[in-house]
Amino acid sequence: LASRLQGFGTTIFAEMTGLAIEHGAVNLGQGFPDFEGPDFIKQAAIEALSSGHNQYCRTQGIPELNRAIAEHQQRFWALDYDPDTEVTVYAGATEAIYATLAALCEVGDEVILFEPYYDSYRASVAMAGAHEKLVTLRGPDFSFDPEQLRAAFTPKTRAILVNTPHNPSGKVYSRVELELIAQLCREHDVLAITDEVYEHLVFEGEHIPLAGLPGMRERTVVISSAGKTFSFTGWKIGHSCAPAPITRALRSAHQFITFCNGTPFQHAMVHGYRAPDAYFEQFEAEYRARRDKLCEGLADVGFEVLTPAGTYFAQTDIRPLGWDDDFEFCRMLPEKIGVAAIPTSAFYSQREAGKHLVRWAFCKTDAVLDEGLARLQKLR
Amino acid sequence: LASRLQGFGTTIFAEMTGLAIEHGAVNLGQGFPDFEGPDFIKQAAIEALSSGHNQYCRTQGIPELNRAIAEHQQRFWALDYDPDTEVTVYAGATEAIYATLAALCEVGDEVILFEPYYDSYRASVAMAGAHEKLVTLRGPDFSFDPEQLRAAFTPKTRAILVNTPHNPSGKVYSRVELELIAQLCREHDVLAITDEVYEHLVFEGEHIPLAGLPGMRERTVVISSAGKTFSFTGWKIGHSCAPAPITRALRSAHQFITFCNGTPFQHAMVHGYRAPDAYFEQFEAEYRARRDKLCEGLADVGFEVLTPAGTYFAQTDIRPLGWDDDFEFCRMLPEKIGVAAIPTSAFYSQREAGKHLVRWAFCKTDAVLDEGLARLQKLR
Ligand SMILES: CSCCC(=O)C(=O)O
Ligand SMILES: CSCCC(=O)C(=O)O
Repeated sequence: LASRLQGFGTTIFAEMTGLAIEHGAVNLGQGFPDFEGPDFIKQAAIEALSSGHNQYCRTQGIPELNRAIAEHQQRFWALDYDPDTEVTVYAGATEAIYATLAALCEVGDEVILFEPYYDSYRASVAMAGAHEKLVTLRGPDFSFDPEQLRAAFTPKTRAILVNTPHNPSGKVYSRVELELIAQLCREHDVLAITDEVYEHLVFEGEHIPLAGLPGMRERTVVISSAGKTFSFTGWKIGHSCAPAPITRALRSAHQFITFCNGTPFQHAMVHGYRAPDAYFEQFEAEYRARRDKLCEGLADVGFEVLTPAGTYFAQTDIRPLGWDDDFEFCRMLPEKIGVAAIPTSAFYSQREAGKHLVRWAFCKTDAVLDEGLARLQKLR
Repeated sequence: LASRLQGFGTTIFAEMTGLAIEHGAVNLGQGFPDFEGPDFIKQAAIEALSSGHNQYCRTQGIPELNRAIAEHQQRFWALDYDPDTEVTVYAGATEAIYATLAALCEVGDEVILFEPYYDSYRASVAMAGAHEKLVTLRGPDFSFDPEQLRAAFTPKTRAILVNTPHNPSGKVYSRVELELIAQLCREHDVLAITDEVYEHLVFEGEHIPLAGLPGMRERTVVISSAGKTFSFTGWKIGHSCAPAPITRALRSAHQFITFCNGTPFQHAMVHGYRAPDAYFEQFEAEYRARRDKLCEGLADVGFEVLTPAGTYFAQTDIRPLGWDDDFEFCRMLPEKIGVAAIPTSAFYSQREAGKHLVRWAFCKTDAVLDEGLARLQKLR
């Protein structure tokens, strides 16, 4: 194992899903839906498969999907991207993030990350030979100290990675927070990389794309995921939108990392991104109901629930139940209670900051949420 | 664009396929079949899609595919791999190669490549922060100078990448050649990475997996591609087989590059790797017929044809037709003759070594090969 990968063992998702399978636990850990995406997309995939769309496509993605993604950016976020030169399709948002960092960072560059972070960010920064600078989200609202953010910008800063809505906290960055980030990016001539895979799952406030703030479109790589937005995470279709000169660099990396992915699925996702507004409204409404069910149930068990403004994850403080170590709690849970969850401190560089928090996924059917909550009653 | 990617613009495949589309040319350039893979695999994909296999799978791949790949290695090459700890599925062999180099190379390590090389190798080596050491395949039989190979091994050598059957030359490495490579790997304690995506397309001689030679299994990462073996290149399913300690490192990189890929396609490919021997025999026989058709046709036009022992590519010397610059020839061809091909010097560090050679793909239907050959008659 190369030294840049030392310390990045197995993802926490693999560990907890492994325990869930071993003990037949209800898996509220790893964030993937246990239900299917919409039938019209699935039928479109079968149609594409059946009609000969099974060979390599262009490295940047099929033209129709590049266009559908650009239209979607315009329709929801009023951002204009040229489908030919500014949109790129990847093997999921994970590859998009990886390729972006590989394409843009020199060895020794610094990349600002907020912690808790989605675990692939740190590994992708390290694999690009760059160094992370961490800014901490704390407290029940996961806010950050503006002074800590300001201090994180140095002459070596190449990029800041902003994930909103934010996994694992469920936070949606506010306009005030994003404006400060934008101002610092402009002042220090820093690129922004935004992971917006939960863009359509905002329950309080609104999703504000950083690229829409003054001076930001030209320096931002917007990343999102058809897999997440249309509940087919196993198809691994994600994308970036970025100004043409940056996109050229991203494609240069992407063509050698995977070249292209999932030709028939790309055809299917065209129908997803062109779905009527009603699809996206219903998607949000269904998730809101799942969030409310899970959060009420967790509160009833006795957790202090930090109700998320977005994503499909909820955080709980486990101290009211007499626990104070999230890893201990989450390693006990599958076997003793028959439920799996994710210890939040896995996403902090200093475990102390998140040791009292546990993350629960609500991208699950009502029956599964009910069963999980029923089992958790044993904790009372 | 980060400096490690400087000089890696757009792949030659994108350029030539672009010209083919622009001029309505018969595309004998980029190596993807213009026909469909077997129907039983396609039906299995539709079945998997329809029955709910659409979310993330394990980062190492679904257990059944890991097993089917291990069985296939045993059946054809008498190599034993443990499906749980030694087999990993990726978004294509391209990602497998990328992840292997990223996982195993330290900055400053050297990796030995043979040129002409498949273009992603050099980029993947550079992105891992390693340096390439090139050994040249020359002459009508694309042999190498044993002394050049020996001299390429230094105390900094981490790995040697061996692609057999070899793209773009069509060469199949001989036992004598592989034994020398194995001996040098053992002597210098160097890892081998084998790209065997054309393992089932050998028309003369036999495919010899380097991992099967004495002392090599423990130091070799075997890479291959279900997309290539079953003619569904757009599904992007590839794999590695490697001893457990190396596999742990590969998975560590892979989980952060793409995490996993194509869950329903993985289910379908189980049926591919478990297909009866007759499938693989027919696959080879059909390609042999295509090779013979293309090579005879090209000879008839007046090229000197270097009939390939393997892969789905043939090399021709263009000098008998009065050309001496493959790029000039290949940039003229789509517009003037209505055919696209690949200039072989794109795969050499020093253009001189391959300037008189052009690569033609025969993974095409008879009708397309006939039409391409008919158009090429205009060159006479
Ligand atoms: C790729 S596995 C992780 C899925 C996910 O997004 C999460 O659980 O946070
Ligand atoms: C990924 S595009 C290149 C396809 C191929 O293997 C080739 O043409 O050599």
